[in-house]
Amino acid sequence: MKTIVICSGGLDSVSLAHRVAAEHELLGLVSFDYGQRHRKEIAFAAACAVRLRVPHQTIDIRDIGRSLSGSALTDDVAVPDGHYAEETMRITVVPNRNAIMLAIAFGLAAARGADAVATAVHGGDHFIYPDCRPGFIDAFRTMQRHALEGYADVTLFAPYVNAPKSAIVTDGARHGTPFGQTWSCYKGGDIHCGRCGTCVERREAFDLAGIADPTAYEDADFWRHAVKGGVR
Amino acid sequence: MKTIVICSGGLDSVSLAHRVAAEHELLGLVSFDYGQRHRKEIAFAAACAVRLRVPHQTIDIRDIGRSLSGSALTDDVAVPDGHYAEETMRITVVPNRNAIMLAIAFGLAAARGADAVATAVHGGDHFIYPDCRPGFIDAFRTMQRHALEGYADVTLFAPYVNAPKSAIVTDGARHGTPFGQTWSCYKGGDIHCGRCGTCVERREAFDLAGIADPTAYEDADFWRHAVKGGVR
Repeated sequence: MKTIVICSGGLDSVSLAHRVAAEHELLGLVSFDYGQRHRKEIAFAAACAVRLRVPHQTIDIRDIGRSLSGSALTDDVAVPDGHYAEETMRITVVPNRNAIMLAIAFGLAAARGADAVATAVHGGDHFIYPDCRPGFIDAFRTMQRHALEGYADVTLFAPYVNAPKSAIVTDGARHGTPFGQTWSCYKGGDIHCGRCGTCVERREAFDLAGIADPTAYEDADFWRHAVKGGVR
Repeated sequence: MKTIVICSGGLDSVSLAHRVAAEHELLGLVSFDYGQRHRKEIAFAAACAVRLRVPHQTIDIRDIGRSLSGSALTDDVAVPDGHYAEETMRITVVPNRNAIMLAIAFGLAAARGADAVATAVHGGDHFIYPDCRPGFIDAFRTMQRHALEGYADVTLFAPYVNAPKSAIVTDGARHGTPFGQTWSCYKGGDIHCGRCGTCVERREAFDLAGIADPTAYEDADFWRHAVKGGVR
């Protein structure tokens, strides 16, 4: 299955790239620059492509990011601290982001003759991002079957859609993913902050998986106090 | 129904904008610059917004256009002459273009609190563009219901999806659309060429509707000889 992986440079999508490289035919990685403040993550996607010896393409959709303003991921709104699965994390939603990126990736797949687009959406995203839920994934696949009918036959590979993030850590380790070469923090500082939703989720996932976390955090212990629903 | 109209500046989408302004609450027009050689059409969308006194936004997705290269609409490939519904017109397909633009427009609608996105896809597009067919439109609506669940409730208004282009001319005339202020030609010259698929289709639609065509064409009679399946 010739596959293009949507790779942000984060733990999930880099693990997915290593899995696809091992189990399928990895055609390349695609990243999106939507003006995210943590765009340094894209360098980790580029490094992953070099490691796996495939092309890496970054598509500039910053003008879309600007147009859909109002999210803490792109605007001058503070990224909140705390657990990912909290009401406060709604501010990190860029409306329709996943649908937009997937539609672009499907166009790319059709243009390149790929059989599949792979995305690392996972169960932990369901709380806040509706465009990461299984119902969305199924509906998107159906939509694309219609959209490309007669031109291309591209499917959506989303192996983690029902998995917790800890299962991705386990899967990534199985395929030799160098987790230190991945970036999660939404704040985009020099090292991971350890306090934002995605840092807390990352730290927790390694703990649940029972795998050592090689990441350097500014605040390495914050995650123990961040629970769903608030800070303990 | 607060509605954002996807408006290319062409006959169909400008007619749609006039209809929505008359029958619904028109929030604004959105155009996409995907590097199309006929991007002068966008000026006609901007003029339509001024006329209807609503904001107009052009979203720059040229980097997506570059990435999905291989279409005569964006590349240095000649735009073919002849009827729109011909095999040769497949070269004008930018893969997944409609799905991409609609997904972006839905993100914009969610960000702006709109109830609907309106698109002027029509029956005449079905021959070559799978992402203009009724099955696609339905599947897209379903996908978006999932993608924005809990955040926004946006529907897709596609009143022409089963109509021939001539019915759009009739509808546009009913709402006072100034057809001379619309642009169709894929070649993007000073005046409409009269020979490319979309010029032939335009000319034919006015004829079928029995409404005078105010457009100046370089070759005003070519359309009579262009029939589905080839040039007569």
